[in-house]
Amino acid sequence: MQTSAASASMPPNTPRLITRIDVSKKAWEQEPILHNRWHPDIPVVGTVEEGELFRIETLDWTGGQIGDNDSADDVKNIDLTQVHYLSGPVAVKDGCGEPAHPGDILVVEVCNLGPLPGDEWGFTGTFDRENGGGFLTDHFPEATKAIWDFHGIYAQSRHIPGVRFAGLIHPGLIGTAPSAELLAIWNERERKVCSDGPEALTLGGCLHTRPLALVPEPEGALLGSVPKDSPEFKRMAAEAARTIPGRENGGNCDIKNLSRGCKVYFPVFVEGAKLSMGDMHFSQGDGEVSFCGAIEMSGFLELKCEILRGGMEQYMTPMGPTKLHVMPLFEIGPLEPRFSEWLVFEGISVDETGKQHYLDASIAFKRAVLNCIDYLSKFGYTKRQIYLLLSCCPCEGRVSGIVDVPNACCTLAIPTAIFDQDIRPKKGGPPVGPKLITRGDAPMTPYAGSLPTFKNPCPC
Amino acid sequence: MQTSAASASMPPNTPRLITRIDVSKKAWEQEPILHNRWHPDIPVVGTVEEGELFRIETLDWTGGQIGDNDSADDVKNIDLTQVHYLSGPVAVKDGCGEPAHPGDILVVEVCNLGPLPGDEWGFTGTFDRENGGGFLTDHFPEATKAIWDFHGIYAQSRHIPGVRFAGLIHPGLIGTAPSAELLAIWNERERKVCSDGPEALTLGGCLHTRPLALVPEPEGALLGSVPKDSPEFKRMAAEAARTIPGRENGGNCDIKNLSRGCKVYFPVFVEGAKLSMGDMHFSQGDGEVSFCGAIEMSGFLELKCEILRGGMEQYMTPMGPTKLHVMPLFEIGPLEPRFSEWLVFEGISVDETGKQHYLDASIAFKRAVLNCIDYLSKFGYTKRQIYLLLSCCPCEGRVSGIVDVPNACCTLAIPTAIFDQDIRPKKGGPPVGPKLITRGDAPMTPYAGSLPTFKNPCPC
Amino acid sequence: MQTSAASASMPPNTPRLITRIDVSKKAWEQEPILHNRWHPDIPVVGTVEEGELFRIETLDWTGGQIGDNDSADDVKNIDLTQVHYLSGPVAVKDGCGEPAHPGDILVVEVCNLGPLPGDEWGFTGTFDRENGGGFLTDHFPEATKAIWDFHGIYAQSRHIPGVRFAGLIHPGLIGTAPSAELLAIWNERERKVCSDGPEALTLGGCLHTRPLALVPEPEGALLGSVPKDSPEFKRMAAEAARTIPGRENGGNCDIKNLSRGCKVYFPVFVEGAKLSMGDMHFSQGDGEVSFCGAIEMSGFLELKCEILRGGMEQYMTPMGPTKLHVMPLFEIGPLEPRFSEWLVFEGISVDETGKQHYLDASIAFKRAVLNCIDYLSKFGYTKRQIYLLLSCCPCEGRVSGIVDVPNACCTLAIPTAIFDQDIRPKKGGPPVGPKLITRGDAPMTPYAGSLPTFKNPCPC
Amino acid sequence: MQTSAASASMPPNTPRLITRIDVSKKAWEQEPILHNRWHPDIPVVGTVEEGELFRIETLDWTGGQIGDNDSADDVKNIDLTQVHYLSGPVAVKDGCGEPAHPGDILVVEVCNLGPLPGDEWGFTGTFDRENGGGFLTDHFPEATKAIWDFHGIYAQSRHIPGVRFAGLIHPGLIGTAPSAELLAIWNERERKVCSDGPEALTLGGCLHTRPLALVPEPEGALLGSVPKDSPEFKRMAAEAARTIPGRENGGNCDIKNLSRGCKVYFPVFVEGAKLSMGDMHFSQGDGEVSFCGAIEMSGFLELKCEILRGGMEQYMTPMGPTKLHVMPLFEIGPLEPRFSEWLVFEGISVDETGKQHYLDASIAFKRAVLNCIDYLSKFGYTKRQIYLLLSCCPCEGRVSGIVDVPNACCTLAIPTAIFDQDIRPKKGGPPVGPKLITRGDAPMTPYAGSLPTFKNPCPC
Repeated sequence: MQTSAASASMPPNTPRLITRIDVSKKAWEQEPILHNRWHPDIPVVGTVEEGELFRIETLDWTGGQIGDNDSADDVKNIDLTQVHYLSGPVAVKDGCGEPAHPGDILVVEVCNLGPLPGDEWGFTGTFDRENGGGFLTDHFPEATKAIWDFHGIYAQSRHIPGVRFAGLIHPGLIGTAPSAELLAIWNERERKVCSDGPEALTLGGCLHTRPLALVPEPEGALLGSVPKDSPEFKRMAAEAARTIPGRENGGNCDIKNLSRGCKVYFPVFVEGAKLSMGDMHFSQGDGEVSFCGAIEMSGFLELKCEILRGGMEQYMTPMGPTKLHVMPLFEIGPLEPRFSEWLVFEGISVDETGKQHYLDASIAFKRAVLNCIDYLSKFGYTKRQIYLLLSCCPCEGRVSGIVDVPNACCTLAIPTAIFDQDIRPKKGGPPVGPKLITRGDAPMTPYAGSLPTFKNPCPC
Repeated sequence: MQTSAASASMPPNTPRLITRIDVSKKAWEQEPILHNRWHPDIPVVGTVEEGELFRIETLDWTGGQIGDNDSADDVKNIDLTQVHYLSGPVAVKDGCGEPAHPGDILVVEVCNLGPLPGDEWGFTGTFDRENGGGFLTDHFPEATKAIWDFHGIYAQSRHIPGVRFAGLIHPGLIGTAPSAELLAIWNERERKVCSDGPEALTLGGCLHTRPLALVPEPEGALLGSVPKDSPEFKRMAAEAARTIPGRENGGNCDIKNLSRGCKVYFPVFVEGAKLSMGDMHFSQGDGEVSFCGAIEMSGFLELKCEILRGGMEQYMTPMGPTKLHVMPLFEIGPLEPRFSEWLVFEGISVDETGKQHYLDASIAFKRAVLNCIDYLSKFGYTKRQIYLLLSCCPCEGRVSGIVDVPNACCTLAIPTAIFDQDIRPKKGGPPVGPKLITRGDAPMTPYAGSLPTFKNPCPC
Repeated sequence: MQTSAASASMPPNTPRLITRIDVSKKAWEQEPILHNRWHPDIPVVGTVEEGELFRIETLDWTGGQIGDNDSADDVKNIDLTQVHYLSGPVAVKDGCGEPAHPGDILVVEVCNLGPLPGDEWGFTGTFDRENGGGFLTDHFPEATKAIWDFHGIYAQSRHIPGVRFAGLIHPGLIGTAPSAELLAIWNERERKVCSDGPEALTLGGCLHTRPLALVPEPEGALLGSVPKDSPEFKRMAAEAARTIPGRENGGNCDIKNLSRGCKVYFPVFVEGAKLSMGDMHFSQGDGEVSFCGAIEMSGFLELKCEILRGGMEQYMTPMGPTKLHVMPLFEIGPLEPRFSEWLVFEGISVDETGKQHYLDASIAFKRAVLNCIDYLSKFGYTKRQIYLLLSCCPCEGRVSGIVDVPNACCTLAIPTAIFDQDIRPKKGGPPVGPKLITRGDAPMTPYAGSLPTFKNPCPC
Repeated sequence: MQTSAASASMPPNTPRLITRIDVSKKAWEQEPILHNRWHPDIPVVGTVEEGELFRIETLDWTGGQIGDNDSADDVKNIDLTQVHYLSGPVAVKDGCGEPAHPGDILVVEVCNLGPLPGDEWGFTGTFDRENGGGFLTDHFPEATKAIWDFHGIYAQSRHIPGVRFAGLIHPGLIGTAPSAELLAIWNERERKVCSDGPEALTLGGCLHTRPLALVPEPEGALLGSVPKDSPEFKRMAAEAARTIPGRENGGNCDIKNLSRGCKVYFPVFVEGAKLSMGDMHFSQGDGEVSFCGAIEMSGFLELKCEILRGGMEQYMTPMGPTKLHVMPLFEIGPLEPRFSEWLVFEGISVDETGKQHYLDASIAFKRAVLNCIDYLSKFGYTKRQIYLLLSCCPCEGRVSGIVDVPNACCTLAIPTAIFDQDIRPKKGGPPVGPKLITRGDAPMTPYAGSLPTFKNPCPC
């Protein structure tokens, strides 16, 4: 009796550990050292072969700045120059030792991921309006925080009692390294947003989050093993891109579906592809509206890579001035939590002052989120709690209609099963009196700035 | 042996027919006559009681302007002042005969819906850029059309061969009548978009669809049983709102999930609620990107209503200058087609010229759609065919990340099972040579205007 | 501009009506006349071509013996020689006019189905133990009935208040005609069960349903257009198989998943295949435990056929004495109602007297059903109501473990969302006192026979 | 700012380790020692409090008898007196220190589970007919084996190439300890099956698996920390129940849905409940037809318990001679892998010799499995490979119809997405010639016994 394949050819099943994290140490004390900028010259921390199963551990995106406690002061005072500590970059080669080349596609399969054993908790926050803000910072300018406990697949929070849901764990940030050319494109176009300022037409109706963009900033930069006092570091730090936005290389896309079993197709811009990742989320709502925003945690990923030679030209049509103007694509995995009943909130592109905008899906989505916050706050929660919740629970944000001038229509769908009460509308209205269970509040540190906040003009 | 309830109290099961449609007749020849504007004074065509099952039939949204043939000329020459023929309005009362009042919520349950027997076909089109355009009209300025045949739950098209999918039938347009006050608000804010013109900040990056808004237009108006030559008609037609955008009353939201088994909670603005509906879709993709855009058809709905007295104040927080600035919400039904495998395309708010926009979900979604069109066109389709397909197949558009300055990240997810070939990326690239099955093209009538169209600046 | 296919080649979309049903008439008054036996010589009522969409209407399986009222007397007194009135048989040919041949596979796609317009109700019953019984007839020997009202996709019953669910409509009975050889095999093996009697080893633990099998019975036979008084009728009626069991040709399989969008692959035993169908169900639970048992209704099917020439040899391995010992297979459609939360009951092959049986899945399933009935009766229902409910609601019966000697393990999973209360176990137990809402009972006609019924030996 | 709950009251998130497994050691070398029999007096290995998260590790069910190699000899020669090594028992108390009492319900929530890090593989086997056999041992009397590699959520096998699927990890065996009274009931009823022998009516049509039952057997017994040479051990081993069948306490139910997020409600028979578990499966098909049958592995579980005081009387109706004749129930978790397309095989209770049985779901299920094996073997696999595959892939076995005398109808549904080829029926038949990819075979050790095996009587 012959078997169909030699067992020798099978890859070992226990993933090879590439980056180990010790959560009691700082990002720059990890071995190998992490990085928090995009730059083609950040040295690789390891090389993996096509088909090899490997493991990457990551710090939480703030590098440990937020504590498991009941104060939002650490969120208010966070140093945002020091965030998005990434593990990697990892170089990828094929079975013959040939590395991934620019123009290839790097297929990354997320075979497994999760929180780090012994560190089974996470946080969701909203930044102070002067320090990062969030999608609704004009409504909620203060810093807030919720701590989440993980019990296996489930998350629950002492700061938002009465909700519980299975996580859809994913890396908020994963991507290949940019080439020098791509890096220059990023820096130029993002600088222009800042220099054009808040009156530019590119801003549409969304003026309320600060800053407009984050340009390269040597302060706080960490570039892996590049010594901090080297000329190399100085050069690189001055041009290395910040990590906040998702871009052509993937990056901080904050797509909640990049979870167990998904396959991501990344463009390759540099030799070896140089894959980096971090900012893991136990769960996130579409939009990640509070900005600090998913259930943020340290964690691990078990990955396998494949190289599609020449795949960029075969599959990714550039759109823009260069061949680099492409975007990743991905396949969703088979293990997303299953929900059947959804309550859905609509929003159109009329803003909350009554002003008409034109096919602006951002405004429409904002209105749907605001509608949902107000609605759910009738069930014993503060609006702050719901704002935090919508940022991290498995809600779905949809561009439902984008052509019916002048109104885009966006929707936000909430799975009703995450609540311990029935939140659907009923005759008689929401619970009142002894039937209304109040749910406390999330820790909050007041806003001390002077920017105006939203006052609902409705006389009600 | 006693039974638990008297059968006498059960509502009859066969739905009461309120509006019958004869597709061989014009909108104004139907009995009762249809309407194509929003106005509080359009006379009701019937009154239903809470819990009563009733049936409404509807014309396709163009009122029969588009034919089941292989030319796109009818799409190009469509008269857009004469669209969105609606059935209704229906007044709703409770079991004591008391009508729904302003301030109530009207719950509408979609018990069933479908195409009209004997008229089992539909169409998807893209308008000429001079006459309505679409989300990508700068890329696709020409008029195109695809005819779809319904075989039970499935749709297939001779103009886009090789795809087939189960419909998620829904009314593109359903809503309650506005009060005079709400109507005035609509007209004022939409007129301002037009008067501010294309350089206004409210337009963001989405400048490419014409017109900016559609203000009241007596030409082509149909107001139910109000005689065309009456002073009443003249007054009403001058102030009646156009039906294109979704608004506070629901309306043309084009939300594909308003299907079998869903429950929609509408605000009530006028006595009786006055529910109208039309523009039925056999299937639609999130966004309905081509504008003429779902699989448009005539059809029927079987509905039940319930009144939540005082529900607006209980459940809907107004946001804006008046108590009328609210939005509907809904519960999704249990019968949406099931798909497991999805291929997902990303887009960020850098437009296709390389210009950086700021957290603009509309731009990000546009990029995701463009990426998907280019990708899928590698499998034997023309880009026009895919543009039509994405407008009407069960694809999902998501606001994935809306906080990572300056880039919003939107995604478009395509269920792979609707294709007769495997459309996932593979080593070796898409099919070429004899393995590539070409799929013809959709009927097209060339663009004869002079507006510039998009030229990909990429040197490739 | 060329289109990819000539529209002329498209099949028409409105299905061709083959059999129309008038529910005010008897089975033998319909045109064409129905049939209620399997026989190769029953004349065809129409011929369809591959790919053609056609429509078949059907009577409810009792041919109208059961009324929409509050008495179970009609169920008790039903004439079971006169059931399973089928529509058809339909002959199938290919595009060249060549009929399906024995040895081919007939693919039947269920494009759509539903209740007959104007007849939107159904019934579930349990037969009297002396007249058909049911899976639990030793526990519930009396005749009972529940009437269901259809409101679009939903069913609800005045006899089992507080539950409501979307239907998964399907034909309980659909199949191809047997050849004379197959008919003889059926009759011989089923006669043997009767002649071996209730002590035979083939009966395992399931002794409680009567009769053992139903052999050919001229009384009550209806054979389509074969005149009742002809010699042909006499010959055929003496050998025509009864329709109760599912067999090699499909037949009365009562598989709830044969719903919208499914594709069934039937073996072809006679020229033209001769497809017949009936016994439509608005909804059924796995097992259809009460026997009269789904939500029984009149209805329509819209179907398309395809012929796989030589498919039986290619795909269906016979197992048994002849080449005819094969079984159909099928693909499930995409539109089954979606449920997320399930409460599941276990049963093992120890019967309710405590007696150990050996790997008997029927006993194990019986125990799971009994456990579920007792459990759910704690929520205000009588056991009779739950027995009826489990027979027709969308519950799933599973063979979970079939190898752990001596116990098979079966499970019965109930979707919790069909109830208007939370039926999950909780601290404090089920509702009592004023919190317990009683739900009346289903109509019942007492058992007047003398067979012993189950007395729970448990001293509790 | 107050938070809604003191963090001090939150249970710690990192689960407390109760039983650690070292897979390089034997079951009796583990600390604490495992056990492989059910007995009320097996000493507890730890006590947990309601709500506390704890971790149990388990050996694979054979205690390491099967190797990751390409021979089936170890399966053939397995010592079945030494199987089902269980971890535990764990005692459960409430927050006041009061243990669970007989009559309570123990709620066990499976918060997480998985393979042991560093031991990411499993096996599926079929036993030799002389040593355990399996559901189809009359068809497949030989010992076979397939080794599965785990890559994160996915399993794949070098012995069954071309299939890959996400696991639905679960403990095959989990249950509370029996009381002495329940133990006596088990032993008595199972001894009777053996003494009645293979001609007893309790056996129905399923005669082909040996042995009939496994009565208490001191040889090979392991009873936790009870010393092997103590009088206590001798007494207990003589009366301790074997672990093969599922019973009133749960036990070896082999229900594949007891996975992440499920909640099981167990009856409590002894003070402290004494929960034990083992026999973890990476994946299993309904039925676990090959008996050695799922993807067997070592693993871990993270659990939380709750006590429903007096729950047995409140929720579980005994059926049988004593109050102990009850069964567990459970809720399914939200994370089962998602599949959309299923190919389904039917079986009726006519056995493969053509003999008619009476409503025998075991026979009907056997026929469905056999039909599926034959069908899938047309796609390049041996029947042995498919038999192994159906035992461990996520297929669903249903009791579809159980009332249509004399035929039960069972179905077996296969998710088509687990194959790397399209396994649906098509015009032209299955692949032949160069299009047929052969898939080798699984390791096999021939059957050397003399029992007759099935010969298909079909002349084909």
